Amino acid sequence: METYRNQEEYLFALSQRAQLPEGFAGAVYPFMFTPAEKAGKEYKMNLSLILLDRPTERFAAMFTSNAFPGHPVTIGKKRLSAKAWRAILVNNKISNVRAPGGEEDAEEVLSELGKLIGAPTDSLLPSSTGIIGWKLPKADMIKNLKPLTGQIGTADALGLALGIMTTDSFPKLRRADLEGGSIVAIAKGAGMIEPNLATMLVFIMTDLDVDKAVMTEALKAAVSESFNRISIDSDQSTSDSVFLLSSARKKCRDLKAFEKALKTVCTALAEDIVRNGEGTEHVMKVRVEGASDAKIAQSTAKAVINSPLVKTAIFGDDPNVGRLLSSVGDHLGNLGIFPDASKVEITLGGHVVFQKGCFCLDPKKEAELNSYLNAARLNPEFKGYPQHDRTVDIVIGLGMGSAEASAMGSDLGYDYVKENAEYRS
Amino acid sequence: METYRNQEEYLFALSQRAQLPEGFAGAVYPFMFTPAEKAGKEYKMNLSLILLDRPTERFAAMFTSNAFPGHPVTIGKKRLSAKAWRAILVNNKISNVRAPGGEEDAEEVLSELGKLIGAPTDSLLPSSTGIIGWKLPKADMIKNLKPLTGQIGTADALGLALGIMTTDSFPKLRRADLEGGSIVAIAKGAGMIEPNLATMLVFIMTDLDVDKAVMTEALKAAVSESFNRISIDSDQSTSDSVFLLSSARKKCRDLKAFEKALKTVCTALAEDIVRNGEGTEHVMKVRVEGASDAKIAQSTAKAVINSPLVKTAIFGDDPNVGRLLSSVGDHLGNLGIFPDASKVEITLGGHVVFQKGCFCLDPKKEAELNSYLNAARLNPEFKGYPQHDRTVDIVIGLGMGSAEASAMGSDLGYDYVKENAEYRS
Repeated sequence: METYRNQEEYLFALSQRAQLPEGFAGAVYPFMFTPAEKAGKEYKMNLSLILLDRPTERFAAMFTSNAFPGHPVTIGKKRLSAKAWRAILVNNKISNVRAPGGEEDAEEVLSELGKLIGAPTDSLLPSSTGIIGWKLPKADMIKNLKPLTGQIGTADALGLALGIMTTDSFPKLRRADLEGGSIVAIAKGAGMIEPNLATMLVFIMTDLDVDKAVMTEALKAAVSESFNRISIDSDQSTSDSVFLLSSARKKCRDLKAFEKALKTVCTALAEDIVRNGEGTEHVMKVRVEGASDAKIAQSTAKAVINSPLVKTAIFGDDPNVGRLLSSVGDHLGNLGIFPDASKVEITLGGHVVFQKGCFCLDPKKEAELNSYLNAARLNPEFKGYPQHDRTVDIVIGLGMGSAEASAMGSDLGYDYVKENAEYRS
Repeated sequence: METYRNQEEYLFALSQRAQLPEGFAGAVYPFMFTPAEKAGKEYKMNLSLILLDRPTERFAAMFTSNAFPGHPVTIGKKRLSAKAWRAILVNNKISNVRAPGGEEDAEEVLSELGKLIGAPTDSLLPSSTGIIGWKLPKADMIKNLKPLTGQIGTADALGLALGIMTTDSFPKLRRADLEGGSIVAIAKGAGMIEPNLATMLVFIMTDLDVDKAVMTEALKAAVSESFNRISIDSDQSTSDSVFLLSSARKKCRDLKAFEKALKTVCTALAEDIVRNGEGTEHVMKVRVEGASDAKIAQSTAKAVINSPLVKTAIFGDDPNVGRLLSSVGDHLGNLGIFPDASKVEITLGGHVVFQKGCFCLDPKKEAELNSYLNAARLNPEFKGYPQHDRTVDIVIGLGMGSAEASAMGSDLGYDYVKENAEYRS
């Protein structure tokens, strides 16, 4: 189990894994600006740059399935057919979604960046997170590109992880070392602490030389078992993006090891994302077993994770297991699936709470479950680091087949409402 | 517009519509009990009786689609094939869902009631709401049936509406007078104020003589456009039930008028249910137009109504219209539907906020929208009655076809978390 007693311990642990893979350099530069939409008010924006020392043909990316993606996503999708990628420019505060001229603005900023670092615009990617609908402060961004490029090489992965934060509670950084190289990944978001549509941005860097097609497939597989299994508010914001870039410096002989390491890194980062919310006081893990097929297992796990009644009960350390059964029954009933209740089994923290068609609850078990939930609580007063990596484990056996799936999410408490109701004020 | 300055005004308005249809009588009796699951603690339970003076063959009911329904629902479904119905016995506090022997317990209580009023058990319906998993206090209930039957005739529809309340903020009662008879309906629940799985119970009484098959179809149509269009937490608890009983005293010549009146009563009652939560500070109405088919229009409207990010923004009087677009885009993208954003139009309170592919926001419009949301707020300090019937109206035009649908729901604020996290403590 990982535990941290204070922020220093956590940042120290992250600094130990912060070295960028060979061929990568980072820069972060903050500046103040006044948005067109809020005359008289000043906001801070960070520009963060993830740069390769030379263009690479080894890249992959996955973007939100939202039907109204942001301009950076639209540009990113086009860049998938570019020959090579050189850098990603990340900004926070404004997500550049559906603002008039948003695509042109982003391209113009990138074009200016390209002149400064000597790279064609189509090798540069934009990535934005923040308020949607507002216009990028293009002139201010362009003006601050020069000091940003002056910082190249000063930010390691921890510097970048800090730079891309918005209201994240702590930086998120994971790495794997293998085959003489490394995979280093950082993330911002989502949910709770990310009221700006819960945007999730993930940047994965590696120096391992893996064929582009293999990279793409490995990324798909890893995302499907990690970021696509977390659920905080809604599944897909207008800006969610996962990037994977390789400097291709180290031969990678064992592709299976690469795929496995990528999955491990993504899964750990996904759990960090759930845990990082100021509003998150419990990380919930739901495992559905015995489903008739994987798709049903997956959607059922997500239905439980997304149930506001389950989430608020867990927030209150209340083993209200009736809500677990009801959320499963609601979801399956709507799909026209009716399991034999006598074969359904539900456990919470290893305690059987539903079996043979009935709840098995008594005052002693309720007290034990209450203690279990309380021990898994993250104290919101300790900000800036995760205190522990305990989770609330829920297992639902449907007794219908052999398919299974997991999902991960957060509870629902007062701070969620506070962050999300007062976000733009 | 309906406005009430205090609880007295509201209760007076309800008393004006509280006369039961001919052939119906009501009774309510409260008592204290100690559940097996919480030794040493006392709880209050209300028994409420909705009684016909003679058995009727004119009845219909709709029950939750939850795959794990409560015992009263299981019994109710069986009773649909009974020849005649005579009464419904409603209890609050314990919902009798998945407790060992729950079906037998309910049948035994009904059998004792049958002896007292001279009716076969299969003409009596159980209806329960409250904590799930706990056993009914069968002995206490049976003991209190006699004093309950002693009260027959003392409760009008307002008395019954008050009797079936649990943590509802105010009683809910609607009526329509037509064809020399009436339709009178009461409801308890749901959502916010009903943390016990948001159970919704609706009892509709009429003295109009309508053929059973016609009644059933009319109920289906009315429920589909009213109760099935509200969404507070999850759609279907383990106990949701809607009953329609007729004493068949008055000839009903105009069936269209009956169907229309039933729909009007159900729609008003559905809105009351959304408005009645202690946690509800805004009633949201979402209308999706221009969809390619009705099913998509309906699921999209529900997706917006269910988005925690939309709900918390509305709670905060924040016209964060980006979240509206994103919730629509998330839902449609997951279905593989990609509308032309340049044809999408979104209005909030009549103000166009998204058009021609872009948000149209400026400081003046943001201020107007903020005022609009603030005016639609229900002050939670005024308990026991609805202050007004204003709603937050959101219209989403997809520009893809001519299908449309509406949904109704509540915002998400601190009191929701409070009610749901601390429900059983």
